[in-house]
Amino acid sequence: MPIKLKKISTNAPAKLDKEKTALKTAKMLAELDDLQNLLFAEGKHALLIVLQGMDASGKDGAISNVFGKLNPQGVTVKSFKVPTKEELSHDFLWRIHATAPAKGMIQVFNRSHYEDILVTRVHKWCDDKTAKKRMSAINDFEKLLTEHGNTHILKFYLHISPEEQQQRLQERTHDPKKMWKYNENDLAEAKLWKTYMKMYEACFAACNKIPWHIIPADQNWYKEYLITNHVFNLLKGLNMKYPTLPPASK
Amino acid sequence: MPIKLKKISTNAPAKLDKEKTALKTAKMLAELDDLQNLLFAEGKHALLIVLQGMDASGKDGAISNVFGKLNPQGVTVKSFKVPTKEELSHDFLWRIHATAPAKGMIQVFNRSHYEDILVTRVHKWCDDKTAKKRMSAINDFEKLLTEHGNTHILKFYLHISPEEQQQRLQERTHDPKKMWKYNENDLAEAKLWKTYMKMYEACFAACNKIPWHIIPADQNWYKEYLITNHVFNLLKGLNMKYPTLPPASK
Repeated sequence: MPIKLKKISTNAPAKLDKEKTALKTAKMLAELDDLQNLLFAEGKHALLIVLQGMDASGKDGAISNVFGKLNPQGVTVKSFKVPTKEELSHDFLWRIHATAPAKGMIQVFNRSHYEDILVTRVHKWCDDKTAKKRMSAINDFEKLLTEHGNTHILKFYLHISPEEQQQRLQERTHDPKKMWKYNENDLAEAKLWKTYMKMYEACFAACNKIPWHIIPADQNWYKEYLITNHVFNLLKGLNMKYPTLPPASK
Repeated sequence: MPIKLKKISTNAPAKLDKEKTALKTAKMLAELDDLQNLLFAEGKHALLIVLQGMDASGKDGAISNVFGKLNPQGVTVKSFKVPTKEELSHDFLWRIHATAPAKGMIQVFNRSHYEDILVTRVHKWCDDKTAKKRMSAINDFEKLLTEHGNTHILKFYLHISPEEQQQRLQERTHDPKKMWKYNENDLAEAKLWKTYMKMYEACFAACNKIPWHIIPADQNWYKEYLITNHVFNLLKGLNMKYPTLPPASK
């Protein structure tokens, strides 16, 4: 069934206790630290985290509060900005593929190849026909990473309400610790909310061979719990083992 | 119709005059030099040359005698050797994609991603099921470069006879200028000729969306003529134009 963002709450369930949930997250993160070490030591699987969401949806916070708790030797973050001239002289997946994770590594994409069918479509830099071809190329590319790079891909959409976004953008205009994130385009972009939602839904529908996880993100503690939980369950399910010494060394 | 290498001559047509053909090649190469400059200046198209062939089939000679005549600022060569540990920690196309040509450039692959369904299959490092998946991934990848990178791909198989190969490998054992190319594995590999031919034919059949050009290569002058001709016709057909100055500068 296609994902309809309007029908999905951006809030944590009312009954859920914030403190208890945060404690669960902390416990999982401690175990995740071990699992990530195992991933690194075994070197058989790669993990790619795709983080998408509107401005101020909490991508940076998720990175620092979840992935920031793990050993940075095995976890890298790539933030995708406006493509450089060199990047534009290649196909749109060239710069993405170059930073795909090696086996043993967790790579976090802060924004990703999906921007090539999101912001570009909202602003009509990319027509529908090109978008359709890009979606097909993205599916092929994710299949390549999965089948030939033993890469597990977790795709998260941080789902906030437009009201929550407005509040967070306002904070950037007067909180001295947040002003550096202020961008004069943010308010203009926010007005395109409905178009963004439409383009997001189109990309969830077309690129769903690897499922999207819609993360209610108006409360950071709930968002962090959900992301941690997905990563934890995935790594736990890999049944990884520490390599032992070769027979001769025993 | 599937390509059957045994049914294709490795020789130049008997009637063809060597000197006249070489003259034609030289003339085309002079024009090609201009066309490559135009490709570089216009910066809209990329050209990828895939050179495959058995040991001693003349890949290095084709590179030096055809592409070596062009401006090296716009022509690069990538020789693919046994993958490094870092390369092996990614999907097999990771190192290939990284060296795909930018718009305006000619990139020559001396061996290529096809080795991942050739040498690997001959030595049974890659089973049939994996090979099939790789073929599908290669088709997707070449489509990506073509559709999204505006890359034109010319795939050449340098077709020599096993007798010609033997003679060339022998030369490496006593010609002081060729000894550096001698590899003690070459003779063992040559014994696997039939298996190689089978695997080449399988890859021509599975990855033919972009056609393979089978180049009779027992005579270098004929091989160089054919390759030059293919590249020349392709670039000529692009109807490229030098960019003019923007109106304000005129």
